[in-house]
Amino acid sequence: MNLAFIGLGNMGSAMARNLIEAGHRVTVYNRSRAKAEALGVAVRIAASPAEAVDACDAAITMLADDPAVLEVVTGESGIARALPAGSVHIGCSTISTALGRRLAAEHAARGQQYVSAPVFGRPDAAAAKKLLVVAAGDAAALERSQAVFEAIGRQTFVAGAEPWQANAVKVCGNFMIASMLESFGEANATLRKAGVDPHLFLDVMSTLFGSPVYANYGRIIADEKFTPAGFALRLGFKDCRLAIDTARECNAPMPIASLVHDRLLEAIALGMGEIDWSAIARVSALHAGLPV
Amino acid sequence: MNLAFIGLGNMGSAMARNLIEAGHRVTVYNRSRAKAEALGVAVRIAASPAEAVDACDAAITMLADDPAVLEVVTGESGIARALPAGSVHIGCSTISTALGRRLAAEHAARGQQYVSAPVFGRPDAAAAKKLLVVAAGDAAALERSQAVFEAIGRQTFVAGAEPWQANAVKVCGNFMIASMLESFGEANATLRKAGVDPHLFLDVMSTLFGSPVYANYGRIIADEKFTPAGFALRLGFKDCRLAIDTARECNAPMPIASLVHDRLLEAIALGMGEIDWSAIARVSALHAGLPV
Amino acid sequence: MNLAFIGLGNMGSAMARNLIEAGHRVTVYNRSRAKAEALGVAVRIAASPAEAVDACDAAITMLADDPAVLEVVTGESGIARALPAGSVHIGCSTISTALGRRLAAEHAARGQQYVSAPVFGRPDAAAAKKLLVVAAGDAAALERSQAVFEAIGRQTFVAGAEPWQANAVKVCGNFMIASMLESFGEANATLRKAGVDPHLFLDVMSTLFGSPVYANYGRIIADEKFTPAGFALRLGFKDCRLAIDTARECNAPMPIASLVHDRLLEAIALGMGEIDWSAIARVSALHAGLPV
Amino acid sequence: MNLAFIGLGNMGSAMARNLIEAGHRVTVYNRSRAKAEALGVAVRIAASPAEAVDACDAAITMLADDPAVLEVVTGESGIARALPAGSVHIGCSTISTALGRRLAAEHAARGQQYVSAPVFGRPDAAAAKKLLVVAAGDAAALERSQAVFEAIGRQTFVAGAEPWQANAVKVCGNFMIASMLESFGEANATLRKAGVDPHLFLDVMSTLFGSPVYANYGRIIADEKFTPAGFALRLGFKDCRLAIDTARECNAPMPIASLVHDRLLEAIALGMGEIDWSAIARVSALHAGLPV
Repeated sequence: MNLAFIGLGNMGSAMARNLIEAGHRVTVYNRSRAKAEALGVAVRIAASPAEAVDACDAAITMLADDPAVLEVVTGESGIARALPAGSVHIGCSTISTALGRRLAAEHAARGQQYVSAPVFGRPDAAAAKKLLVVAAGDAAALERSQAVFEAIGRQTFVAGAEPWQANAVKVCGNFMIASMLESFGEANATLRKAGVDPHLFLDVMSTLFGSPVYANYGRIIADEKFTPAGFALRLGFKDCRLAIDTARECNAPMPIASLVHDRLLEAIALGMGEIDWSAIARVSALHAGLPV
Repeated sequence: MNLAFIGLGNMGSAMARNLIEAGHRVTVYNRSRAKAEALGVAVRIAASPAEAVDACDAAITMLADDPAVLEVVTGESGIARALPAGSVHIGCSTISTALGRRLAAEHAARGQQYVSAPVFGRPDAAAAKKLLVVAAGDAAALERSQAVFEAIGRQTFVAGAEPWQANAVKVCGNFMIASMLESFGEANATLRKAGVDPHLFLDVMSTLFGSPVYANYGRIIADEKFTPAGFALRLGFKDCRLAIDTARECNAPMPIASLVHDRLLEAIALGMGEIDWSAIARVSALHAGLPV
Repeated sequence: MNLAFIGLGNMGSAMARNLIEAGHRVTVYNRSRAKAEALGVAVRIAASPAEAVDACDAAITMLADDPAVLEVVTGESGIARALPAGSVHIGCSTISTALGRRLAAEHAARGQQYVSAPVFGRPDAAAAKKLLVVAAGDAAALERSQAVFEAIGRQTFVAGAEPWQANAVKVCGNFMIASMLESFGEANATLRKAGVDPHLFLDVMSTLFGSPVYANYGRIIADEKFTPAGFALRLGFKDCRLAIDTARECNAPMPIASLVHDRLLEAIALGMGEIDWSAIARVSALHAGLPV
Repeated sequence: MNLAFIGLGNMGSAMARNLIEAGHRVTVYNRSRAKAEALGVAVRIAASPAEAVDACDAAITMLADDPAVLEVVTGESGIARALPAGSVHIGCSTISTALGRRLAAEHAARGQQYVSAPVFGRPDAAAAKKLLVVAAGDAAALERSQAVFEAIGRQTFVAGAEPWQANAVKVCGNFMIASMLESFGEANATLRKAGVDPHLFLDVMSTLFGSPVYANYGRIIADEKFTPAGFALRLGFKDCRLAIDTARECNAPMPIASLVHDRLLEAIALGMGEIDWSAIARVSALHAGLPV
């Protein structure tokens, strides 16, 4: 397929590479050109989002947040005005459900298709084609996007016919991880004060849950190694807000999301915005009077 | 070894069977004699806890809660007055850290040894010798208990030299599960209102966390099949209280534990005390105005 | 003074009347003209916000929420383009601190002055000139606004030199009331289940706190008379969001605000959005399994 | 009346003095005799609780907590074995509802009467006979206690026919104050970060609520003057636990009580147990990164 790929951060670059390797013709756009050039000669580099999507079958966006996506889509040289009719915009960014709905409407108004397809996985999973893709949208548009999903992930889940439903699943999934981190932090603080080695608890939990996610994050917490950040705390805070916003739209209270929101906000107030979001555990330690 | 085993509920019966199969001579005591007889001819049945521990090398207790354990240990025909000096009491029940300390003191005062060795796992795991044993106590006492641990579990973790430390780990571990259940319930309610199939979310989470615990509990929640109870909600509530009590002793606030406490209390107020504790998810559904 | 008054709801109408009675020349604008006509012959009725502020010394706005204020100020026939240089816009609505900052900037860019001056009090207090005015802005602008404050309220508090600071005080004040309502509701539910007459508790609390606010709201809760709504629950929910937004901007977590947010959201999910916001107490009653 | 008064802390001494002034014959007992002697020649000093109540018409207890009350009532030289049949024990301490029920049963078994009559007010209110008395128990016993209530307080409220109902009202009342302190602390932290003078907010709130309680506690918080402690934070924490225990007995979740519990526990972990309980506001300040 002729693909456009917009947003070459750590995640996007790895995904773009996999699309190239899968044999697609890929035109990329990134705000800073260096990231685009790093992809090598196989890609065409566009000077704007609009130029990138010109004549593509599908355009993939992988950007930091709502404002970035909105600008790339509806901005002056955005893709909405250039995407060929019948083409599909595959939005992989973690965005609000509200923006998911708006993008669907913007594209529909122009005879374009839109699917939300946020992904779970860190950059190393992206590089290894092991992302989990949660997609939602019109059946035909999903069908057209299938080759893209296969090239970037290990499994695709269809959340529904409305694109924003995939965004809802993504923010709820991130909420599940954040909740786990907070729980780990609370137990960790209590057990440190009980004189129990945090690594012992980590071992028990890894075995009990049988989950690599528990093992990996639990280790970071037990080691108190919050740098370098795998996922910056302020981004986790942003995602937590997205979960609360979704809960509000759905009239479905999520009290743990509120609690995690307040803990992450405290962490930011205390200067931890740029370290790994598992540093939410440090908040529990501070509240227990532990040295951090 | 000559073993006494006291408390033949679903967990205890399975553990006692495994000890017999491992070749130990086991004398059992249970309040209702029928459960003891169901273990077959290989066991000796005692008429009281005191009689059961007479001449044993180690006595294992597996009882419902603090009052039951206290009665069996310090009651009129309790084991404290009959356990041979040098013998070890292995407490496998989920009890408070406060009781863990008290038992250690009671036994020490009589020249007896005590280890706390609570276990993770449901009755089927107990039957399959797959429990996780978290043990704490004096090194020599742990050494003596090793054969027991090996006969009942798949792995043993040593939490510290003070018996109550194992109890602290156990209540924190149960808290981790309770927290996960509440998170699942919140996400589930939001996504049901977003029109997303709960089983889709279950699939994504099972894959994302790669955890059988998430898969199993997530299925119960997605299916809304809270009976028969694998673990009754009112028992989960009791364990949640134990976590809060431990947190209080350690001066280490655990806000998710408080939140889960309040949700489970609500569930009990609404008549759900005897169904599976994953029914905490039903509380989130009710709060979102969903039919349950 | 020559005054423009925009927004003639229950609050605004009463405030406008008091300004007229105080001898000011008042031109009003309201979306539905009937409310304007109800003020009698003493007022001039404008066809748009822009027309209303033409030649005024000060323009007062009293509107429902951020979007309404934004439209009236920056909309096509908004006041920003018509307010004479040197005039002051006195914003009495309960708006976000973010909008407070934006309005200050919009007006400053046009050589106009802006003060935020939200008020505490219900319509009967407005009618009786008993509002509390919390004002913030440039000292000269506050000085010019003094006659307006005196005509509508019983006391004026100056929150700072930045208009949004008054908005911060207002949302925190409403948060204090919401928190009190939630506390009342929790205690009320527990005591009803304890068989204690809610009116007895109301009497004790009214006497203990010596506060008419406790007496009035406590009575509504004890009587369970949530209609007609003195202040609709969905508006209280909006204000609670404003408090959380302010907390987020300030990096200062407010966990009771989060808790109240979730309770009000539940109330809305259960269909209570239009009854009095003290119906937050009904949520506690429901959680305790009480009939409501 | 012939009265026994047991427990001469700051509150008890003031109450005993007022009973003497009202013309009653008072025999006192206090663990440290110096406090008893400080009451002057008008009192008889007993060597034990049992001796104090010998031949009295009513015995008043005003002690620190459940264990102290239990010892004074059921201990070896406790009042239960010495109180004349037909006499009434008036328990003014802030105790658990569970203990309230137990005391009722203990006394009933001996043909004695018991009323719970906890009081609201600080030592200065006690000295000025301005306590609020919340009493519950058998109508005849309340009738007999009337003269005592009149001598110590400005108003008496009858909570019900079961003594523990008065204890329920008392712990809920203290919860209302604690909740107010936490709210004040949250708003205060946010507004400090917004650059608003805390005393300005205090003024607005005092005026808005028209409550001396808000004015007094608000001043302590705005001044950050948490010593000397009017009421030690660790005692406030104890009372918060009592509220949670009552809520648990009644199957009525009180989430703000849980939240306040965790904040006070944090304060204790950080070494604030002995300063005034309004220092709960300091926790919010710390979480916002403010200097304290």
